Amino acid sequence: MSPALLSSFATEIIIPVCAVIGIIFSLFQWVVVSRVKVTPDRNGPPSISNKNGYDDYLIEEEEGLNDHNVVIKCAEIQNAISEGATSFLVTMYKYVGIFMVVFAFFIFVFLGSVEGFSRKSQPCTYDVSRMCKPAIATALFSTIAFLLGAITSIISGFLGMKIATYANARTTLEARKGVGKAFETAFRSGAVMGFLLAANGLLVLYIAINLFKIYYGDDWEGLFEAITGYGLGGSSMALFGRVGGGIYTKAADVGADLVGKVERNIPEDDPRNPAVIADNVGDNVGDIAGMGSDLFGSYAESSCAALVVASISSFGIEHDFTAMCYPLLVSSVGILVCLITTLFATDFFEIREVDEIQTTLKKQLIISTVLMTVGIAIVSFIALPTSFTIFNFGAQKVVHNWQLFLCVCVGLWAGLIIGFVTEYYTSNAYSPVQDVADSCRTGAATNVIFGLALGYKSVIIPIFAIAISIFVSFTFAAMYGIAVAALGMLSTIATGLAIDAYGPISDNAGGIAEMAGMSHRIRERTDALDAAGNTTAAIGKGFAIGSAALVSLALFGAFVSRAGIETVDVLTPKVFIGLIVGAMLPYWFSAMTMKSVGSAALKMVEEVRRQFNTIPGLMEGLAKPDYATCVKISTDASLKEMIPPGALVMLTPLIVGTFFGVETLSGVLAGALVSGVQVAISASNTGGAWDNAKKYIEAGASEHARTLGPKGSDPHKAAVIGDTIGDPLKDTSGPSLNILIKLMAVESLVFAPFFAAHGGLLFKIWG
Amino acid sequence: MSPALLSSFATEIIIPVCAVIGIIFSLFQWVVVSRVKVTPDRNGPPSISNKNGYDDYLIEEEEGLNDHNVVIKCAEIQNAISEGATSFLVTMYKYVGIFMVVFAFFIFVFLGSVEGFSRKSQPCTYDVSRMCKPAIATALFSTIAFLLGAITSIISGFLGMKIATYANARTTLEARKGVGKAFETAFRSGAVMGFLLAANGLLVLYIAINLFKIYYGDDWEGLFEAITGYGLGGSSMALFGRVGGGIYTKAADVGADLVGKVERNIPEDDPRNPAVIADNVGDNVGDIAGMGSDLFGSYAESSCAALVVASISSFGIEHDFTAMCYPLLVSSVGILVCLITTLFATDFFEIREVDEIQTTLKKQLIISTVLMTVGIAIVSFIALPTSFTIFNFGAQKVVHNWQLFLCVCVGLWAGLIIGFVTEYYTSNAYSPVQDVADSCRTGAATNVIFGLALGYKSVIIPIFAIAISIFVSFTFAAMYGIAVAALGMLSTIATGLAIDAYGPISDNAGGIAEMAGMSHRIRERTDALDAAGNTTAAIGKGFAIGSAALVSLALFGAFVSRAGIETVDVLTPKVFIGLIVGAMLPYWFSAMTMKSVGSAALKMVEEVRRQFNTIPGLMEGLAKPDYATCVKISTDASLKEMIPPGALVMLTPLIVGTFFGVETLSGVLAGALVSGVQVAISASNTGGAWDNAKKYIEAGASEHARTLGPKGSDPHKAAVIGDTIGDPLKDTSGPSLNILIKLMAVESLVFAPFFAAHGGLLFKIWG
Repeated sequence: MSPALLSSFATEIIIPVCAVIGIIFSLFQWVVVSRVKVTPDRNGPPSISNKNGYDDYLIEEEEGLNDHNVVIKCAEIQNAISEGATSFLVTMYKYVGIFMVVFAFFIFVFLGSVEGFSRKSQPCTYDVSRMCKPAIATALFSTIAFLLGAITSIISGFLGMKIATYANARTTLEARKGVGKAFETAFRSGAVMGFLLAANGLLVLYIAINLFKIYYGDDWEGLFEAITGYGLGGSSMALFGRVGGGIYTKAADVGADLVGKVERNIPEDDPRNPAVIADNVGDNVGDIAGMGSDLFGSYAESSCAALVVASISSFGIEHDFTAMCYPLLVSSVGILVCLITTLFATDFFEIREVDEIQTTLKKQLIISTVLMTVGIAIVSFIALPTSFTIFNFGAQKVVHNWQLFLCVCVGLWAGLIIGFVTEYYTSNAYSPVQDVADSCRTGAATNVIFGLALGYKSVIIPIFAIAISIFVSFTFAAMYGIAVAALGMLSTIATGLAIDAYGPISDNAGGIAEMAGMSHRIRERTDALDAAGNTTAAIGKGFAIGSAALVSLALFGAFVSRAGIETVDVLTPKVFIGLIVGAMLPYWFSAMTMKSVGSAALKMVEEVRRQFNTIPGLMEGLAKPDYATCVKISTDASLKEMIPPGALVMLTPLIVGTFFGVETLSGVLAGALVSGVQVAISASNTGGAWDNAKKYIEAGASEHARTLGPKGSDPHKAAVIGDTIGDPLKDTSGPSLNILIKLMAVESLVFAPFFAAHGGLLFKIWG
Repeated sequence: MSPALLSSFATEIIIPVCAVIGIIFSLFQWVVVSRVKVTPDRNGPPSISNKNGYDDYLIEEEEGLNDHNVVIKCAEIQNAISEGATSFLVTMYKYVGIFMVVFAFFIFVFLGSVEGFSRKSQPCTYDVSRMCKPAIATALFSTIAFLLGAITSIISGFLGMKIATYANARTTLEARKGVGKAFETAFRSGAVMGFLLAANGLLVLYIAINLFKIYYGDDWEGLFEAITGYGLGGSSMALFGRVGGGIYTKAADVGADLVGKVERNIPEDDPRNPAVIADNVGDNVGDIAGMGSDLFGSYAESSCAALVVASISSFGIEHDFTAMCYPLLVSSVGILVCLITTLFATDFFEIREVDEIQTTLKKQLIISTVLMTVGIAIVSFIALPTSFTIFNFGAQKVVHNWQLFLCVCVGLWAGLIIGFVTEYYTSNAYSPVQDVADSCRTGAATNVIFGLALGYKSVIIPIFAIAISIFVSFTFAAMYGIAVAALGMLSTIATGLAIDAYGPISDNAGGIAEMAGMSHRIRERTDALDAAGNTTAAIGKGFAIGSAALVSLALFGAFVSRAGIETVDVLTPKVFIGLIVGAMLPYWFSAMTMKSVGSAALKMVEEVRRQFNTIPGLMEGLAKPDYATCVKISTDASLKEMIPPGALVMLTPLIVGTFFGVETLSGVLAGALVSGVQVAISASNTGGAWDNAKKYIEAGASEHARTLGPKGSDPHKAAVIGDTIGDPLKDTSGPSLNILIKLMAVESLVFAPFFAAHGGLLFKIWG
């Protein structure tokens, strides 16, 4: 087992350098975006650079488009959205902060109690001939890592939201110059978030490892066990972000649509609608902040899962630092690859036609995947010994570096396949969504039936892709293989997040155009951006779910190793009941979140109706609605309603582990994983398809679409109903489910020492 | 290990006697039903017996109610429905017959090839010191058992349909005399089907065992291995019955509603609607014939699963015939218990008020469960030795008779709990359905969101009930415990089927009243019967799913034993990919069936619209619609569309077993089981809740309901949309899924010898 080509010293340099490059690039993009002014231009019309040839299709200035009022109005609306989002997130983080402190205390007490808070060194878990740091040290450092992860997650979500609310009005204003300019602004802003988040996550993790090493020294087993707290912290914040943000955004969206579009027949985002600001705030706290926290969580967990398995493999045992840091090196190269990929969208080519948006975004996925394949090959050959051993449930398995390369690649490419399948099922350029749109002819019922069927069907290929990745990576390198496959899928996270964040930014941009009373043509351009955004949002969710499946399996494997279970045999009653109850949890969880959105939306509907009925002149546009009350309804509902689903996810592993023991908990994890993936994929694709079926009818871009439209026709009304039903499915339940499966797995892993020592109380009494 | 108290001779007598009692009782009920004449009464008004006090609330004769025309019209409609259903089933059985022959051939070839068609005796699988009959004998007898099961299933479904179409018009006519009389007729007819099916299933199985024993003699291992073909035959017919019938009924129902109720604003079952006959035929082929085949399949499979495990336990090894026949004895006592229970509904008490219907049906469940508990206790103490050993994956486990008693009881009572929970979530007497109805205020979208959330939530308690049953029965008596728990749940099958079949009969009765132009009050009475019927249908589906979960686990256990697998370890790649792909199958399957219903409904809508537009005088009731074309659309669609989902279920075990081997197949079975149960329960409860939310608004029985109604109001329209969406969920996808999980398990068990010998081709090449 020859050492890696890359020296430890070089590794120590490369990782932080790549992270810093990512941060600088992100700041650069931010500077570019900030050049678009949202203050009225006192020197005449906006100066348009000739360099990119944009004036080829620059539309003639329309009346009032550039006047002070419109720009000021945009700035006002942007401020309102930004303030609403900031105030909600700050309030949410306060609540969540209390939870964080309480949970941190629990972690310390539970893990400290494993050896009765003894401060003496203990024999190592996997190598009893050596001495390791005491359990209380693991308890303390796990707690610190948990807090670090939680804070990084909060920062990721918060910064994402800030950037998105900084970019939305700018995108609107750029849309005056053409769809290409608007796309560029939205995409660059997405990139700011993507790179900041990826680089930040890597850097904090890297620093934490180095700081922890000062105490742990050669005890890498303890070191990386403690580091898993980072994943737990990241994911538990993501849970609240996703659920709270998801309820917020969809309560506002559904409430606004039900009264505005259906009852009052006013357009989406009409400033007369009292819930319109809440709706736009929601996009930022749900789709941006929630998504950011979620993917950061996945990234942190897959890194932790890989590290903890590696620490008890030959890398850890032989203290090969470069090989140990392989997961971090993959992520570092990922940042560089995504940087080059981004240039293809923003600098090397430019968008001139609406049709090109979708293609450009798709190219982003392909380019990043192809480049990353090369990147992974390089890292695998210079950072890994040609062969090494990996811990595989009690035995060491010999693995070659090319095998590990294949493991990462299979994850990466499976991600691309999932992305394409998602695109096929949710974009209105293909027949599935068109069929759903067509079924609106016979009303909302057939629309819903076809949409549900589409969602179910869209599960098939992604599951096969995940299954193949699991089989290949599992066969080659056991649980380490799975963990690096997940990392592979997430290695292009910066690009993924950029195209993902682009969606809600465009959505907001359209909203601002509508509210500022800008011309119809601006709205058409932002709508085109938004339709592509719906698809990319679905693709982003596909990635999030696919990677969550792999990550949780890896964490599950690490948990089983740490808990000292030999096999997880389905045909033992303890495991089987866990499996069937685990498979039920996604349903329980979805029931809670769907009901929460429904109830909050009903309250919103009542308030919006009340305002329309009691504020004189509102419908005529003479009086301003009371936006703040609607914001408050969404805020209160989401803060209150996020607690029960949050508790379900956070408490289940603790209760099952403590009372039923590690075997039943293994069953629960496996059941929740295999069932939750299906529910999550079908929910998010069904919702995406309904949304785009509606947009397909509205856009009327084809002969077929025109026979279904226009806005306000019966098929269109049926499509709006489908879209509304899809809202909580695609933006609340679906995306939260991937956190459910990851979080339960990482929580079980962190608490594994406690469960192994003191778990299964009920069976101890029964037995 | 003392022998059982009951002698083998007594056992040989008791089982057929109970079966014959069941058949006689069923014929008796049929005679009672047949006393209601559907020929015009030439001797004045119908004579009403004073004995039961019905005249207390006999409504005054309304104009024309008893005239020749109405009765003749009822008879005509009944004939049309009966002919439509018969013709569809005959056509379907022709297609299915071809499949049956082909599949029988496959069974013979696959199983015969295990030992290369050798006709020499072989060492037994579980006791190699003894010689057993050759594999080719198992192949032959499995094939015969398969055909027997298939034919019995067909007969069960067909007879059920015949009885239902015999009873529907009679129920309508009896509704003239009062709701009590109508209930009695519908319930007695349900009982005819329930008892005939339960007794028939038991008798055929019993005779088959005795005939096979002539050849097998002391080789009980081979004998009961061959008998499992009976379960496979029963279930594969049930699959086509459920899927084909489900598509038929819902294509017609959805198509009829979309044009009739939504577009033309004519009532349900209006004779002007061209799809109305197809809709009523559908109730009989889907809900009656399909349900009958389904529960017969469950019953056959749980018996087979119990018998095959028992045959390699001490009962089989020591040739204790009475103990061996314990599963059959439980079913025999079940028939007697259900017989007494039925008298409570039809003879001991009588229904005077609409409110009493639901209570009476609920009492049926409670009475049968309480009595059966006593019955099981008696059987367990006289038919079982005080202690014995049960085969448990390679080891023999000592079990006491009281433990086995508890296993059966836990299944029986879990069934009752599932029934009650289902009632709670689907009956409009409780808050969940009322909340869903209330959400219709804000339109169809919130109705669907609340309905989906309700379905998800309704999964929780049934899953815990199933998990507890599994844990208790598994812990006490391994896979035998699970199998007898399933039998316990199905031991009151005659009562279950009676209350289940009662629903579609009442539904049809209402349709006939409407079509025959009978008075509004008759329709109100049949509607009240039907609303209770929706709930009982959901309860029936709850039982079907709960028992399917237990049955498939038992079959799965038997398969694992037979395939010679030691453990099914989730943490091996082969098993895990099976698990995740298996969990996906219910979605794939549902996507197919939902889409089929949707497409067929679209065709139906076009045809119905065409008739309304082109047949002059149709809307005015002056011209007759062309019912036959609509019947043909449903028939063609269901026959064509049942093939892909059928193929998915039938081929998956064969492909996975042959190419990926028994470990992956184990994963697939476990995954499909734990995921399918959830989808099935949530789908059928969501659909039931929507249907009853609509009925709640229509009935307007409470202050709250009246604020939502009346028929034609906006909330009511929203409720109709929900009901339509629920149709394929509750009557096509949901119920078919429990066959999916059972059938894959029993098929795997039957083909286990082949897979064990020749399976896993891909891994043999790869490895």
